[in-house]
Amino acid sequence: MRTILVIGIGTGNPAHVTIEAIAAMNRADVFFVVDKGPAAGELNRIREEILARFVTRAHRIVAIADPPRDRTAAAYEGAVADWHAARAGLYGEAIVDALGADGCGAFLVWGDPSLYDSTLRILDGVERAGVTFARKVIPGIASPQALAAAHGIVLNGVGEPVRITTGRRLATEPPGEGESVVVMLDDGTGLDAVADDAEVWWGAYLGTPDEVILAGRLGDIRHAIKGLRAERRARKGWIMDICLLRHRRGAPPA
Amino acid sequence: MRTILVIGIGTGNPAHVTIEAIAAMNRADVFFVVDKGPAAGELNRIREEILARFVTRAHRIVAIADPPRDRTAAAYEGAVADWHAARAGLYGEAIVDALGADGCGAFLVWGDPSLYDSTLRILDGVERAGVTFARKVIPGIASPQALAAAHGIVLNGVGEPVRITTGRRLATEPPGEGESVVVMLDDGTGLDAVADDAEVWWGAYLGTPDEVILAGRLGDIRHAIKGLRAERRARKGWIMDICLLRHRRGAPPA
Repeated sequence: MRTILVIGIGTGNPAHVTIEAIAAMNRADVFFVVDKGPAAGELNRIREEILARFVTRAHRIVAIADPPRDRTAAAYEGAVADWHAARAGLYGEAIVDALGADGCGAFLVWGDPSLYDSTLRILDGVERAGVTFARKVIPGIASPQALAAAHGIVLNGVGEPVRITTGRRLATEPPGEGESVVVMLDDGTGLDAVADDAEVWWGAYLGTPDEVILAGRLGDIRHAIKGLRAERRARKGWIMDICLLRHRRGAPPA
Repeated sequence: MRTILVIGIGTGNPAHVTIEAIAAMNRADVFFVVDKGPAAGELNRIREEILARFVTRAHRIVAIADPPRDRTAAAYEGAVADWHAARAGLYGEAIVDALGADGCGAFLVWGDPSLYDSTLRILDGVERAGVTFARKVIPGIASPQALAAAHGIVLNGVGEPVRITTGRRLATEPPGEGESVVVMLDDGTGLDAVADDAEVWWGAYLGTPDEVILAGRLGDIRHAIKGLRAERRARKGWIMDICLLRHRRGAPPA
């Protein structure tokens, strides 16, 4: 039976890789690659560095084309589902073409496969389409952890919950009193919806040589965060950032 | 200046350790150890295995006594704060006694230092008490990631948030419609408060040879989870477990 490994490789620092991930990478005959967009070149270089440093076994790289995604769709969930179905077809073809009956293929996932990554959902679609394989997931360092480590902080208040959400959702569901909220995939509009009194810990390009962090009262550093986002995105052609927001109990919620 | 490294080492599988953590461990003159309770012996064996496998540099182990904690206190936050203050005093003494002016000490943290771990808060207290040091945090694989990997799933619904919370908080703040909730530090009472219609992905001793997982509709497997919890805790003397709960949209919330 074929085996598909889904391996978390961290946020861009090759040293984020775990011993378990290294062992898994050294089982793979084929690495499937699906990068696209403005960050593809840089992400590809980091992945090549990881393979060169840690993989001693002969292997092939197989690129999978990325189908177009309808980003204008009003029904976000429906558009994502269509896009995942199209990708499942392409992933399934690549798996059948590239792997022998007992072959082992791997997907290297930025961060951790369990958080805002589509690889596992697409593989569910591949299985539903009748392509069978054994699946093994290897966890990796996710960006909320890289953010907390860079700032030297804990994500949760004592005994309090942490919500991990998207910029899109933050706009309609702002942080409540005492709540800690990690915001991923924000184009900037999410942060715009949060009141000045929140404390914020922000970071971009975490784990890479371009890592930059800022922390303070949102009202005091909102302008600095926006300026850095715009400037770095213009300079590099892309940005990946994340932040933690928290309202102190007693402070006015957003 | 002294340096204190706070290093996440994963949930019990020595292979969860990252390359960054291994490099950090090999900078430390002293490893500070604060285990207590029924799991101390087993956790200590895992830590010894990690040090033996990955640390080539001479080092010392320094045990820090754990002050008693008032678990009966009505004011949970206040009791935790008092306990952290007492620990800060002991940590500060140990750091000053064991490390030279330029010495490097390390705390190895189960899971990730950013999630429901007190080490960083206690070190904040040590600094407030006037003991100065440079601090560096190295992220590690946390139990929500180990849970998701063991089940081969994503924690969030498509575009949906994830809440990470405690069993204590779950009892008063059950999962909402479409919400994904990761429950840590549950003594069983948290899960009791959740309606049968939730889907649950449960795991204990994740990453260790004793790892056990169950998944299904909560009403169908609640009894099996409770039975396993009781049986394993009796057999081993302790249990560390975690679960993901989710209500499908349209399903009745708890």
